[in-house]
Amino acid sequence: MNFLEKRILKDGVVKEGNVLKVDSFLNHQMDVALFRQMGEEWKRRFADVPVTKILTIEASGIGIACIASEYFDVPVVFAKKSKSINIEGDMYTAEVESFTHRCINQVMVSKKFLSKEDHILIIDDFLANGCALQGLISIVSQAHATLEGIGIAVEKGFQVGGRTIRNLGYRLESLAIVEGMDAETGQIIFREQE
Amino acid sequence: MNFLEKRILKDGVVKEGNVLKVDSFLNHQMDVALFRQMGEEWKRRFADVPVTKILTIEASGIGIACIASEYFDVPVVFAKKSKSINIEGDMYTAEVESFTHRCINQVMVSKKFLSKEDHILIIDDFLANGCALQGLISIVSQAHATLEGIGIAVEKGFQVGGRTIRNLGYRLESLAIVEGMDAETGQIIFREQE
Repeated sequence: MNFLEKRILKDGVVKEGNVLKVDSFLNHQMDVALFRQMGEEWKRRFADVPVTKILTIEASGIGIACIASEYFDVPVVFAKKSKSINIEGDMYTAEVESFTHRCINQVMVSKKFLSKEDHILIIDDFLANGCALQGLISIVSQAHATLEGIGIAVEKGFQVGGRTIRNLGYRLESLAIVEGMDAETGQIIFREQE
Repeated sequence: MNFLEKRILKDGVVKEGNVLKVDSFLNHQMDVALFRQMGEEWKRRFADVPVTKILTIEASGIGIACIASEYFDVPVVFAKKSKSINIEGDMYTAEVESFTHRCINQVMVSKKFLSKEDHILIIDDFLANGCALQGLISIVSQAHATLEGIGIAVEKGFQVGGRTIRNLGYRLESLAIVEGMDAETGQIIFREQE
């Protein structure tokens, strides 16, 4: 069991409706020392690929991506979720359905910050049905950039997102893959890795 | 002129309507090496105060706050902007008007993550009219926590936010204070500091 799986067992809370709350260390309060371990581990797993930029999506991906970027020494770009008056000019856009917020967001990245010369590592905190990730992959594809890999903190292995992405041939490294949860007992089962 | 002012002169773009675009290094693409300089500078300026937690607000404050937290060795909590089905239980809330998005957001922090024992440093990327910051201050106050200081990257010194906060007696350290901008010439004038 790795450091993140141990932390999820210690501080994660299972709720009805397949909700795993990790808000005490991952996506509301953020344990930056843990993020450093995650960054180091992604660097180990993606040591063989060239990365020029990390792409994530607001909001809870941003902190993890920034800390991870210290191990890759590249800038971070985050996809924005709604049209702001400060955003103008040509944008790559994708529609993303949010499981958590039960809505559809337009996500966008300025064309200035992704180009065909870029080698992209996508980083995000959660992978469930994969809608956010599909939007980010679409944006990388629109930019004709090279998608080198995807680093996820917590994957819900019993939902379809991760399997679809792997079936499509993308290199996906989830630090913890939850195979099953029980809200009654609080039990969490992880997929064996390596 | 400090490192951030130099960077704003180099890469910031002045637009009509008192808009300063810093999206190539601060709030869309993020230069994490620059964030480290900012974190180091805030640590220097707030070296004399005890900090147990950094508080910020989604989205663009998160990256800066996470990198800054490495210099203070404390967790980060970010205020969330909309009700999510994953948020439950008692929350501190405040209403915040967004200049950029022209709307009013409910911002909230779980009561689990702020308590009267906490000594809070607020970190955010921008200070203009100060609405977001007032919401965060209200939340710290609701928690009966101690607000030790406020670190801002870019303050628009010609808008009312910073003056109001200083008048109220809060310790506010903005790394760059823009006194005036000219969209025609692209000129940016900073307030002298130290």
